[in-house]
Amino acid sequence: MSDVEAGTSSGRVEAFSDAVIAIAITLLVLEIRVPVVKDGESLSRALLDLWPKYATFAVSFLTIGVMWINHHTLFERIQRVDRRLLFVNLFLLMAISFVPFPTAVLGDYVQNAQAGHAAAALYGINMLLVGVGFLGLWMHLAAHPELRVAGFTDDDVRQALRRTVIGPLTYVVAIVVSFISAPAALAMYAAIVVYFAVGQISLTKG
Amino acid sequence: MSDVEAGTSSGRVEAFSDAVIAIAITLLVLEIRVPVVKDGESLSRALLDLWPKYATFAVSFLTIGVMWINHHTLFERIQRVDRRLLFVNLFLLMAISFVPFPTAVLGDYVQNAQAGHAAAALYGINMLLVGVGFLGLWMHLAAHPELRVAGFTDDDVRQALRRTVIGPLTYVVAIVVSFISAPAALAMYAAIVVYFAVGQISLTKG
Amino acid sequence: MSDVEAGTSSGRVEAFSDAVIAIAITLLVLEIRVPVVKDGESLSRALLDLWPKYATFAVSFLTIGVMWINHHTLFERIQRVDRRLLFVNLFLLMAISFVPFPTAVLGDYVQNAQAGHAAAALYGINMLLVGVGFLGLWMHLAAHPELRVAGFTDDDVRQALRRTVIGPLTYVVAIVVSFISAPAALAMYAAIVVYFAVGQISLTKG
Amino acid sequence: MSDVEAGTSSGRVEAFSDAVIAIAITLLVLEIRVPVVKDGESLSRALLDLWPKYATFAVSFLTIGVMWINHHTLFERIQRVDRRLLFVNLFLLMAISFVPFPTAVLGDYVQNAQAGHAAAALYGINMLLVGVGFLGLWMHLAAHPELRVAGFTDDDVRQALRRTVIGPLTYVVAIVVSFISAPAALAMYAAIVVYFAVGQISLTKG
Repeated sequence: MSDVEAGTSSGRVEAFSDAVIAIAITLLVLEIRVPVVKDGESLSRALLDLWPKYATFAVSFLTIGVMWINHHTLFERIQRVDRRLLFVNLFLLMAISFVPFPTAVLGDYVQNAQAGHAAAALYGINMLLVGVGFLGLWMHLAAHPELRVAGFTDDDVRQALRRTVIGPLTYVVAIVVSFISAPAALAMYAAIVVYFAVGQISLTKG
Repeated sequence: MSDVEAGTSSGRVEAFSDAVIAIAITLLVLEIRVPVVKDGESLSRALLDLWPKYATFAVSFLTIGVMWINHHTLFERIQRVDRRLLFVNLFLLMAISFVPFPTAVLGDYVQNAQAGHAAAALYGINMLLVGVGFLGLWMHLAAHPELRVAGFTDDDVRQALRRTVIGPLTYVVAIVVSFISAPAALAMYAAIVVYFAVGQISLTKG
Repeated sequence: MSDVEAGTSSGRVEAFSDAVIAIAITLLVLEIRVPVVKDGESLSRALLDLWPKYATFAVSFLTIGVMWINHHTLFERIQRVDRRLLFVNLFLLMAISFVPFPTAVLGDYVQNAQAGHAAAALYGINMLLVGVGFLGLWMHLAAHPELRVAGFTDDDVRQALRRTVIGPLTYVVAIVVSFISAPAALAMYAAIVVYFAVGQISLTKG
Repeated sequence: MSDVEAGTSSGRVEAFSDAVIAIAITLLVLEIRVPVVKDGESLSRALLDLWPKYATFAVSFLTIGVMWINHHTLFERIQRVDRRLLFVNLFLLMAISFVPFPTAVLGDYVQNAQAGHAAAALYGINMLLVGVGFLGLWMHLAAHPELRVAGFTDDDVRQALRRTVIGPLTYVVAIVVSFISAPAALAMYAAIVVYFAVGQISLTKG
């Protein structure tokens, strides 16, 4: 057993991941800027007009929240961390920490008839990359039984993989929907997070 | 007992919540922008004119600080975390992490005769949602004795609920006050946090 | 012994404080904005002209770093946390989390003959408030021996208080210097943090 | 043994360092601003034109990620923390927390024929300072065997030092390359992080 495998306990990697996820989720609010209204203009109207910013904030907050739960569920199955897992996890964290940018873009452009398509697609691409990161972690666990906790079998991993692959697939569909209608894509992103909230729960109940 | 109930210890959810709360409270300062003064203009005057930004910063900092203490007090009563509690807590964190936005809006517009009303109301609505989140957590504990630590009785939960409901009620009053006077609403937000600081302390002493 | 005193262990308050201090120290860099240069203008010149931003960044980073060490030293002497200590500590954290704002103001205006005075004074006032927060914590420990760890005597507290009071006093002098020369005040802030780095070390060696 | 040496456990310094590194890595995304497009302009084009921002984001994210792993590897060798090590570590954290600024500058100017040189050099200088910080920590460990964990010999430290010195040297070369071509320097920064990812792994396997 090498030093890094002995030393880099699953717990410490998880603590670092938790910190990055907690920071990314809390930075989302910074992308909502105070509206500037001149005398005579209505601030309440300006605040209501920001609804796409609130909607994308809420969808991204819940999505990152579900990612956090999924990440935790996954790391409960990990006993040891090797170097590859460390870098696949770093890629996943990079994708998660990027979420505030597409969130801001989608909030600004979802109502724009032309620009909305690209904004909605960018959001889906980011989420697709997050899903790929999760797939990568599960596939690494599938190939390396020695990293798993005792009692977590090949069958369990296959089941987790089958469920995890649904994420990237639905995001691919949502990216296609983006080119038809940005608001429809946003609605789909909201639906996906609700589905995964429920799905992740039943996974862990199984 | 399902996996998530066994695995998601109260401690880990609390650590994540603490991180989000600590980040939200520390991001507040970013909403105060450096004033731009031209040659001949007074920077000290410009800095003094920012008093509404300092006042809203201080009120929000203390309010989030009290929320942190309340959250901690609540989680001391929790032994196990189930999936619903996880998502009610996520809703609560979403509301807390949103606070920097209404804080910035109120700091910018509290002195504005027209726009001040909407700004003060938005602030109250955010705090109302936080209060609803806390109520939701206590109500979930009321319905699920098996999640509580030993010795925390139904009576204790009812007492906590009665005290927690005061928060949303006072914020509803403050929202009404917002439509009369924004500075008065700000003064009320300051008064509420002082009241809750004292109230929360006596709750935990009981 | 009340619930809060039993439950709010010194360790958990320290973890929350550490998080706030770590976030505040890391947010400092956000106050340095990318310079905008037009074709033909020199970016290297523009980057060099930002030296007051780098200087105030470095001074504030080291100052908050020393605050973190001092906070840790202080909490090593604390066994139990009561409600007052909780709120004095919250006041201290509020002052520390505010530091990025005066840092940005001083970096922008230290070279400005008029505005520099107010900028340098604001910085000193913020640091003075931090010092008052530390004094408040030590005074609370002086009055409440039951909160201290075993073996930390009244004499030890008095010695700590005598050393802690030097901070606010030097910052009062620096505020006065601000009205004579802003760059001189900045130099003094740099000198103070070096002094405290050394002073805090010899304190803990005593 | 002095108080600070006894009290400031390696674990607590490491937790603070982890927090600062996690925050710095997550703040990187804030330096990518939502592009403003007018009606008729293409958002997808504007998003594609931001590729230097994505590239510098990715390079800096991975670089800070590798720094985190290196920092962890180093602190595994530390049993006790003395005052100097505390301040060398603080200097290292200052350099790491500064990374978002040169990242933003390089992302904005890498394609600019004139300004690109200074932007690329600034980035290299920041990384050079990080490397110097790591060298400082290892040199301190070399001079103070009493701070190391049992079994970590002088030979091990010398080996670590030889490997650590490669970092600053390659960044010096990259700074020179900056004055020839900014995109070439950016490519080199990407190559360095890949090299260190692999190198750091083989170090810990040795």
